[in-house]
Amino acid sequence: MNRSAHYVGPHTFVVEETAEVPPGPGQVRIDVAYTGICGTDLHIAHGAMDQRVTVPAVIGHEMSGRIAELGPDVQGHRVGDPVTVLPLDWCGECPACRAGHTHICHRLNFVGIDSPGSMQHSWTVPARILVPLPAELPLAHAALVEPTAVAVHDVRRSRLAAGEHAVVIGAGPVGLLIATVAQATGAVVTVLELDKGRRDLAADLGLRTLDPAAVDVAEQVREATGGAGADVVFEVSGSAAGVRTATDLLAVRGRLVVVAIHPTPREVDLHRVFWRELELIGVRVYQSEDYTEAVRLVHGGQVPAERLISRIVPLDDVAQAFVALAAGGDVKVLVDCGGNP
Amino acid sequence: MNRSAHYVGPHTFVVEETAEVPPGPGQVRIDVAYTGICGTDLHIAHGAMDQRVTVPAVIGHEMSGRIAELGPDVQGHRVGDPVTVLPLDWCGECPACRAGHTHICHRLNFVGIDSPGSMQHSWTVPARILVPLPAELPLAHAALVEPTAVAVHDVRRSRLAAGEHAVVIGAGPVGLLIATVAQATGAVVTVLELDKGRRDLAADLGLRTLDPAAVDVAEQVREATGGAGADVVFEVSGSAAGVRTATDLLAVRGRLVVVAIHPTPREVDLHRVFWRELELIGVRVYQSEDYTEAVRLVHGGQVPAERLISRIVPLDDVAQAFVALAAGGDVKVLVDCGGNP
Ligand SMILES: [Zn+2]
Ligand SMILES: [Zn+2]
Repeated sequence: MNRSAHYVGPHTFVVEETAEVPPGPGQVRIDVAYTGICGTDLHIAHGAMDQRVTVPAVIGHEMSGRIAELGPDVQGHRVGDPVTVLPLDWCGECPACRAGHTHICHRLNFVGIDSPGSMQHSWTVPARILVPLPAELPLAHAALVEPTAVAVHDVRRSRLAAGEHAVVIGAGPVGLLIATVAQATGAVVTVLELDKGRRDLAADLGLRTLDPAAVDVAEQVREATGGAGADVVFEVSGSAAGVRTATDLLAVRGRLVVVAIHPTPREVDLHRVFWRELELIGVRVYQSEDYTEAVRLVHGGQVPAERLISRIVPLDDVAQAFVALAAGGDVKVLVDCGGNP
Repeated sequence: MNRSAHYVGPHTFVVEETAEVPPGPGQVRIDVAYTGICGTDLHIAHGAMDQRVTVPAVIGHEMSGRIAELGPDVQGHRVGDPVTVLPLDWCGECPACRAGHTHICHRLNFVGIDSPGSMQHSWTVPARILVPLPAELPLAHAALVEPTAVAVHDVRRSRLAAGEHAVVIGAGPVGLLIATVAQATGAVVTVLELDKGRRDLAADLGLRTLDPAAVDVAEQVREATGGAGADVVFEVSGSAAGVRTATDLLAVRGRLVVVAIHPTPREVDLHRVFWRELELIGVRVYQSEDYTEAVRLVHGGQVPAERLISRIVPLDDVAQAFVALAAGGDVKVLVDCGGNP
């Protein structure tokens, strides 16, 4: 039997036993070890995405597990292999896919949002979305590969180079991952965060932090860069103030990576964009090569998975996990789906 | 003697005889043939830049002429050589200069704004800003090399490739130059322009045009691109509506080049920037390689200088030239500075 958590409506999950789904041709069944909860999952749990999600829905896409069963004709995988998934399924035919940008397919199926996810013990998925994991990588840590791939994608799109100065605005889970990935690139990283708890955690991780409410951030960044300004700013706060700060901080030819989702248009200082030849760069999810690098960074410890996982809750308590995460104070909450005996 | 036009205050020029300035070490004296008038010159003439310009001021930087006299130690040039100038003088020491971005020097001297310009018969300048011209290039056409270099820089920064679809929002002189340079790159170019006269001129130049007030531009661009959208949009209108249209038109991974100067922050649809992984790219003036390409395009006729020059006025009538330009209907107005006998 399979035990799975179903989102049925705002703040409400039902955990129940259902039949396992036998893998069809090209599919595998996974025993899910852990599923991380991200900001999008939280939005879903709060009912903010009810127009997109069909209830009852098993959500979750930040996962790790082991292959439990292979469907007919599946090659290159063995039962017992540790895996995560790259939870994107694209059409292959739209203009974006034809241009090679399959991760931004016009008809993208985001597995765990648009189709069933991993908050269950037994999960059947297409083998083509599997990403193999090193045998020695703890499966709890491996659940951080997906959010790390987001950070790797964002840093890669920024063209951040060793020795450059990067500023990360906002030290939530995504901001912290971007900061640690940027640091692994050899960049000098400063994290801006208003919340003391998050700022302290960033500092504990060895990141330089500034409180924008307490210091003149532009002055500090100018001083730290010999008057030049930051080469790259990652806007992860989602706030109008964050966007304003970002353009203020950037050096000539600096790059602003728009990581956070801004639901409404934001005022952008296009005069400064012109005057300093700035770039704004949009970023969305990841591509295969980002997973390769994310696995390497989590495995190598440059991304301190151990320290970013603040709580692991049993599948039966999934509703409480969402409550805890919404309350703040947590970084990364994992749901133990039972597949790591 | 030298005859020169001096801006002395809003809408007021005084044309008078002054002594020629003999070229010092490293300088040359140029007999100026033509000086074009650009939007910045118009701003100055209207008094909008009185805080930056020291009156009486000889302005002008879109020029052509012949070397009349060499200062001591000037090498690589001969009296009689046809030349234009790259009117930027940088400090070489600021963070932007040290990073190799001398055209965005923190202490940039823009020749013709921050120091005397070419609206005079005899002009003495540092030899280092000279750009040699082909002997057969008519000097009137050569006065369009500087604005063409702006367009070349903008197109180069956009990474526009042959076969890609570009949209130019606004068909003033800068927009038309960008459109013709983009077309020379092998791109498919559509020009959006509200004014019928400008639109007709663009059509006469062989450009596809659309009237944003009459048709659904997004729908037209989608149809023309198989549903993808534009690869590059050049925002040359300077309007809030132009910025909005630009993000609406762009394909996945499309690039929005911010050409126009937006005096106030503009609302930008950052959700679409994220959703389609768009880029915004700031552009300012030009670099040496842009001049090389601009000379080639004006010389080769890909930039139709003859058809873009709508009026040539004598130096004595410079004030009227500004009035005519401000009234609209003109594309490029040249001032005949007397050096093309
Ligand atoms: Zn597609
Ligand atoms: Zn400088």
